[in-house]
Amino acid sequence: LYHPKVIDHYTHPRNVGSLDKKALNVGTGLVGAPACGDVMRLQIQVNDDTGIIENVKFKTFGCGSAIASSSYMTEMVKGMSVNDAFLIKNTQIAKELSLPPVKLHCSMLAEDAIKAAINDYKSKR
Amino acid sequence: LYHPKVIDHYTHPRNVGSLDKKALNVGTGLVGAPACGDVMRLQIQVNDDTGIIENVKFKTFGCGSAIASSSYMTEMVKGMSVNDAFLIKNTQIAKELSLPPVKLHCSMLAEDAIKAAINDYKSKR
Ligand code: FES
Repeated sequence: LYHPKVIDHYTHPRNVGSLDKKALNVGTGLVGAPACGDVMRLQIQVNDDTGIIENVKFKTFGCGSAIASSSYMTEMVKGMSVNDAFLIKNTQIAKELSLPPVKLHCSMLAEDAIKAAINDYKSKR
Repeated sequence: LYHPKVIDHYTHPRNVGSLDKKALNVGTGLVGAPACGDVMRLQIQVNDDTGIIENVKFKTFGCGSAIASSSYMTEMVKGMSVNDAFLIKNTQIAKELSLPPVKLHCSMLAEDAIKAAINDYKSKR
């Protein structure tokens, strides 16, 4: 039913946890999926000089595909500039993980979350 | 956001796993939730003489509410007769776990799964 990469990220999710919400170089994105009611929180810690994402953590109450999408997303954005990370599309994630169409909204949750985290970081500066 | 009971079952789900699908006293229910595309498998092992559910296991790729609903459901049905278990309503589960309305379909997945497992067990006899 699911691609081995999804199972891998689901059973061993990367970068689960929290960063200090109040730190000036931390951006927090909290988003919801209207399709299913699930929520995701994604946080990035940015180097203010270089704009590079140095740390990233997420937490979700969402399904296996949401966990896999966000886990994969955190691996992608670590070491990336916030400007590049802002351009990530959920379709890249869905393709890499071979998500079925009914699960596209779960990868959308990951895209929305990184965008919201970047916006929050930028609004603090 | 979520009731402590949901968090408890989500972080320490009870009765996760599998039973021997081919055993004559094991019923397997595999059901899906149209609302989100998630699936759940629930298996019961029944004492043929008494009709009592002696063991129960589940697996799901679903969200936190689906995991909590089915984990709670497995605790309910262990030691119950198949006839009583067939009458469990998802609203009982949703109420016990204080699920928000948008998550009612996750508790429905648990109700559908136990009914399907009981039907499968009965069809084997
Ligand atoms: S079904 Fe809700 S995030 Fe996947």
